[in-house]
Amino acid sequence: MSKHENPWMDVEGEDIPATIKLDPVLFRYTHPNAHVLDVACATGKVTIELASHGFPVTSIDINHDALEMTAKAVLDNEIQIIPAFARATALALPFADGIFDVVIMQAFLTVVVSTEDRSKIVREACRVLKPDGHLYIADFGQTWHLDIYRERYLRDLPVTREEGSFLAYDEKTGEFAYTAHHFTEKELVFLLIENGFEVEFFKRDTFVTRTGNRVNGFVVVGKKRKKMKNQ
Amino acid sequence: MSKHENPWMDVEGEDIPATIKLDPVLFRYTHPNAHVLDVACATGKVTIELASHGFPVTSIDINHDALEMTAKAVLDNEIQIIPAFARATALALPFADGIFDVVIMQAFLTVVVSTEDRSKIVREACRVLKPDGHLYIADFGQTWHLDIYRERYLRDLPVTREEGSFLAYDEKTGEFAYTAHHFTEKELVFLLIENGFEVEFFKRDTFVTRTGNRVNGFVVVGKKRKKMKNQ
Repeated sequence: MSKHENPWMDVEGEDIPATIKLDPVLFRYTHPNAHVLDVACATGKVTIELASHGFPVTSIDINHDALEMTAKAVLDNEIQIIPAFARATALALPFADGIFDVVIMQAFLTVVVSTEDRSKIVREACRVLKPDGHLYIADFGQTWHLDIYRERYLRDLPVTREEGSFLAYDEKTGEFAYTAHHFTEKELVFLLIENGFEVEFFKRDTFVTRTGNRVNGFVVVGKKRKKMKNQ
Repeated sequence: MSKHENPWMDVEGEDIPATIKLDPVLFRYTHPNAHVLDVACATGKVTIELASHGFPVTSIDINHDALEMTAKAVLDNEIQIIPAFARATALALPFADGIFDVVIMQAFLTVVVSTEDRSKIVREACRVLKPDGHLYIADFGQTWHLDIYRERYLRDLPVTREEGSFLAYDEKTGEFAYTAHHFTEKELVFLLIENGFEVEFFKRDTFVTRTGNRVNGFVVVGKKRKKMKNQ
């Protein structure tokens, strides 16, 4: 069993998944010098790509090894503009209001088990964005047409109590590793529009998982709404 | 109000929608001389395309004008192998068991209001297919990221009582014309696997509606299962 309540705090570096490629649509929303926040930066793939493009990037992760791997990747890649790092939770970002142009969440919400936490995280992203800022999300979609996922969703539903969620196990030890959630289009759209964003861009995509399966995915860009709903 | 319980029996020829293009994947499942049943052939677009490829096609529709337009299209296109026609409902196909190689339902299930009827229709398709036959479905997917559809789904839910359904109105008269349903991936997958099929092919696509909107769509090919579930 995990030392902490959040299993991601204890995952060892080599077990940190980092699978989805950055979609080029992101660059429509990143003007030169756009300040980007990479939430749950994992092994730093996105951080490095953005920093290599010259963007000032700030990266957070809750996992110590993840930050260490990102730091190592920065050194290995001889990047001119050094990203800033912080060990932090997306539930309470250690940043002032309205300072970022773009917030990125790449295959991150899939491992946030609670729907309340997902909402809180998106509201936090909204808070730290500038008034005309954008939230970029790339994440997994429910894949009912593949037997392997349909069976997992149904098998684990009594435990996860959320349709589209399933338990992932450590390949080496066979022990429970974490819970993953695959989203419906409706879930992602309402996650944005109920927490401060308009849907600016929406694309259905196909992603390859860490185990090599081709599953449904989404790339979504939300634009911070001028006023909150019901204000 | 419609003379009949089923509004599609009375739609005039020019108001019959026929929007989705035939996906080339169909030809993977149609060997030469494959006998194809085109369910709800509408203006005959698919019938003509298949007949032009030399396939013997049988077409049914519940609407008299639809069959007339298909017949006219056959004459206009000087097709060698003349398709067979019948005015019939997909709920009770006027054909013997196991005689077709492929059954096609192109933008048809979207206008079948009752989920029980959809199941019955797919079971009927299964019945008339040969043991190794395939069912090809192309239909609309729920499109939550577009305001226009999200608002329709939510606005009409108290009337339709099915998420993803909405009321379509006649553009000229403004009168209620028919109810349409946009599917989730899960719905389509279970419609197949609970009614005699395995999912052989599944693709997410983008379709253009008759009003010019770009919406989510699916192309699904089911393979008739050797034995029914629980047999």
